Amino acid sequence: MSMPTDAEIAQSATLEPITKVAESLELGPDQLELYGRYKAKIDLGVVDERRASRPRGKLVLVTAMTATRFGDGKTVTSIGLAQGLGKTNRRHCLALREPSLGPTFGIKGGAAGGGYAQVLPMEDINMHFTGDLHAITSANNLLAAATDNRVHFEQRAIRRGKAEATDATVDPERIVWRRVLDICDRQLRNCTLGQGKASDGFPHQSGFDITAASEVMAVLALAKDRADLRARLERMVVAWTKGGQPVRAGELGCIGALEVLLKDALAPNLVQTIEHTPALIHCGPFANIAHGCNSIVATELALHSADWCVTEAGFAADLGAEKFLDIKCRELGHFPAAVVLVVTCRAMKLHGGVDLDAVGAENVEAIEAGFANVRVHLDNLRRVYGVPVVVSLNRFHFDSDAEIAAVRRLVEAEKADLALYEGFARGGEGAVELADKVAAAAEGGNQALRPVYDLDMSLKEKVERLAREVYRADGVDWSEEAEADLARIQEHGADALPICVAKTQHSISDNPKLRGAPSGWRLRVGGLRLSAGAGFVVVRTGDLMLMPGMPKRSAAQVIGFGPDGNIVGLS
Amino acid sequence: MSMPTDAEIAQSATLEPITKVAESLELGPDQLELYGRYKAKIDLGVVDERRASRPRGKLVLVTAMTATRFGDGKTVTSIGLAQGLGKTNRRHCLALREPSLGPTFGIKGGAAGGGYAQVLPMEDINMHFTGDLHAITSANNLLAAATDNRVHFEQRAIRRGKAEATDATVDPERIVWRRVLDICDRQLRNCTLGQGKASDGFPHQSGFDITAASEVMAVLALAKDRADLRARLERMVVAWTKGGQPVRAGELGCIGALEVLLKDALAPNLVQTIEHTPALIHCGPFANIAHGCNSIVATELALHSADWCVTEAGFAADLGAEKFLDIKCRELGHFPAAVVLVVTCRAMKLHGGVDLDAVGAENVEAIEAGFANVRVHLDNLRRVYGVPVVVSLNRFHFDSDAEIAAVRRLVEAEKADLALYEGFARGGEGAVELADKVAAAAEGGNQALRPVYDLDMSLKEKVERLAREVYRADGVDWSEEAEADLARIQEHGADALPICVAKTQHSISDNPKLRGAPSGWRLRVGGLRLSAGAGFVVVRTGDLMLMPGMPKRSAAQVIGFGPDGNIVGLS
Repeated sequence: MSMPTDAEIAQSATLEPITKVAESLELGPDQLELYGRYKAKIDLGVVDERRASRPRGKLVLVTAMTATRFGDGKTVTSIGLAQGLGKTNRRHCLALREPSLGPTFGIKGGAAGGGYAQVLPMEDINMHFTGDLHAITSANNLLAAATDNRVHFEQRAIRRGKAEATDATVDPERIVWRRVLDICDRQLRNCTLGQGKASDGFPHQSGFDITAASEVMAVLALAKDRADLRARLERMVVAWTKGGQPVRAGELGCIGALEVLLKDALAPNLVQTIEHTPALIHCGPFANIAHGCNSIVATELALHSADWCVTEAGFAADLGAEKFLDIKCRELGHFPAAVVLVVTCRAMKLHGGVDLDAVGAENVEAIEAGFANVRVHLDNLRRVYGVPVVVSLNRFHFDSDAEIAAVRRLVEAEKADLALYEGFARGGEGAVELADKVAAAAEGGNQALRPVYDLDMSLKEKVERLAREVYRADGVDWSEEAEADLARIQEHGADALPICVAKTQHSISDNPKLRGAPSGWRLRVGGLRLSAGAGFVVVRTGDLMLMPGMPKRSAAQVIGFGPDGNIVGLS
Repeated sequence: MSMPTDAEIAQSATLEPITKVAESLELGPDQLELYGRYKAKIDLGVVDERRASRPRGKLVLVTAMTATRFGDGKTVTSIGLAQGLGKTNRRHCLALREPSLGPTFGIKGGAAGGGYAQVLPMEDINMHFTGDLHAITSANNLLAAATDNRVHFEQRAIRRGKAEATDATVDPERIVWRRVLDICDRQLRNCTLGQGKASDGFPHQSGFDITAASEVMAVLALAKDRADLRARLERMVVAWTKGGQPVRAGELGCIGALEVLLKDALAPNLVQTIEHTPALIHCGPFANIAHGCNSIVATELALHSADWCVTEAGFAADLGAEKFLDIKCRELGHFPAAVVLVVTCRAMKLHGGVDLDAVGAENVEAIEAGFANVRVHLDNLRRVYGVPVVVSLNRFHFDSDAEIAAVRRLVEAEKADLALYEGFARGGEGAVELADKVAAAAEGGNQALRPVYDLDMSLKEKVERLAREVYRADGVDWSEEAEADLARIQEHGADALPICVAKTQHSISDNPKLRGAPSGWRLRVGGLRLSAGAGFVVVRTGDLMLMPGMPKRSAAQVIGFGPDGNIVGLS
């Protein structure tokens, strides 16, 4: 391909001043806090005011089939779809997650779309942006320091005979709050902190997660306003006492400091697509330990400011769309008007049994076999959740006509709509078909809530229901640890919370090696974790990787300034 | 006192748009990158252009006598002096260090001046500001991850028999690059990282310093431009090989990524004093492991944009002014036109033998005795460095007339100028006397360089000269460790670097308990550390605290939003 790189396309684009982009959302300069010429935060008061006074537009969720390791283009499709809505004169606003520095310097090298479907300025969005992730890092770590500071002084007083350990004493072995950094750094996964002299703290096995995995990130993404943010922060559990009671962040006396640290981070960020349409890029919680969606405030602001709000969710539909529909939409109070299911020929070939390094070669048979994966996701979305779906084939230059014809045939056999998406190569022009089909599918407006489980089910029932209905498991097996976690969590009244399942993104099952539409398997639950501030119970199946490592050759070794002073290596 | 709090004064002030403040420095909107209405970064191109095309104004350094634990008001004096220059119609620009979140949430509770001598918006300056410290944290830690990543893959290859350890292999025991966070957290001082499985890295005793102590901070503060920044980053030593050679950051292939992370952080930040005069607040390296001054680019921009540039240096004159004059001024190429030596009655009483909790009570005798401390600093500045000095008495409401008269008498006996400074209570009006006296003292213009040691002296000679001339020690004793460090550093050609002595700020000597003007002591050097990027050799005397802890009751427990939605607890 002779196509320019993402960075080259971004740098050759002419941006509109962000004040001009804001006008398309009827936002005046007084409602913006500028971060340079091309980024702004929007005053939180606007969100409240529009929620109260303006009708809600149509919500469109972009999700995907189970992906290859390359990713399959959810973000590129979301951005291109927004651009396509613009090309077809539909008032719209994109609402996406913000990238994390860790993956940017690790394997991914950026997360602001690609080709002619990008959000700009991509160099800033991929770096510090407006500082939200840094604010979250600071707040998370201040809370960690405050927790350990309490333990340090409690233990010191006990050591010096000035106090006695009671049921209310924090159990130093059960501090659950970890520190975070926005980086890929395997050295930080497991550490012993507090070594040295007694004045250097107390020895404690702990570690760091990546910032996107912090519960503070999930809390910020779910908070409706400042009061809700405060209430959620206060509820977060940082440790357990000797007597088995949760120690909440609110008991440490530093919630005010956390609020001040997060005061700007709660306000949504406005940028533009490469075609100058508005994009809110705000919050990016992990899609395993958290729900994996952009913020409630950004989504609601977009919904109440435009006729169309396009958004996305992490990983494939069994993970991302599920959490979007079962967790985030419950907070929003409604389902989307339509869902876009992104598929690629190479992902279908992978699920049809082809090795990853051979998915570029034509193989219609493998596509037919691998379509089983698409069928499960399609069925989940339409039958289980009751939302209209448009299948969007993210077209690559190596897809053959025969392959595309096969996909068309397969999708038609399911009585579903297919759009050929070419936004990467052609921008909004390449997404006109998708935009029109989404508009048609969304005609009925935002759908009524129809989550897969009800909140008044027990936690076990919820997991069972989700596993059977969405993952197509034969049942659920609970480890001893999970049973113990469950008992403790139920004791503290968290049975009524939604669940947030951390599961491999490489399979609909809990086994990353099972491709296509696995059947005849049972979901193994390893443990539970109460995210009381976010308001869900994390259900762990398999290993939970919360601090990625750097590959031997990392994007950090490619990113830099080129000879002309432009940034290279970002994509 | 019925005076309102710092936060109340700040919040009742009406700010000018930063574009208006910029006009007073002849900066147009195209030369600014706005961060909201009241903060901006200034395009680096402006610094280069003005350095080349505009004359240099007069540089005024604010330093102090040896302080009490309360601090003695260097920052408040610097800000008030700038406001006083404004009141007396002198074109000026302030150039100060930026605060660190760690101390803000630890003991200090903020560092943007106080009373009616503040820089605004203090809530933002004390929090994330324009993200410089976060960028430094990210860059420092990316370099740490890249260093450890190299070791991880080297060690793995050796373990698997795919490679052999050679002289060029990084010695995992001699990784000297530590991670940083902008926080006070004693738990992070000493940690074992890389525990767990082999895929989780390699066990390694290390730890975290506070971000201001990162060499990246010192490098950023000393870099003249982008090229100089890159060269300094490349030179930084992150580890040593098995063969005893330094491993430089430049060898890890991620300097481009560091440059991109620091691209905005290198540009100076513009804010305003409470009287709407311009203030550049940029970089804040520690004054022990580093040189403790704001950035070269901000100082030079201020110098070439106004007739007067007021700046400050960390700690007392033996530490802060020394490093300013011997390290930073060597880079600038000249000395200040005048130096302000901040003194307080309470600090003199402390040095005169009074306990800290009794320094509020009148005690003329103690002032007379404690003036010995002032005399050393005054003599150093005038005789050793040859700069004109104005002594500025930072007046507190509990200072008696008799005490002030004594100070006046003592200063006059030294044939020095005294100004009574009341900027805290009265803003620029309270600094008119100081401004006028500074202007008179600075009449001769910026002084010629006259550092206490020459660069062609050996490192030992430099330390000896500094210890005898400035600290008034009888000589220097070198530990075995220091001798070994010295040999290694000399082997790598660093003998010609300036020295940066890390010494207690509570005494002119290396013993924090010795008040006044200690004599009959010898300086003990514990070890040396090569900061090859910053371009100096750190000389350690006594313990070096690079990661403060939180006090039992911290500012984090006081800072928050008040009932009216304003931030409280910052000062």
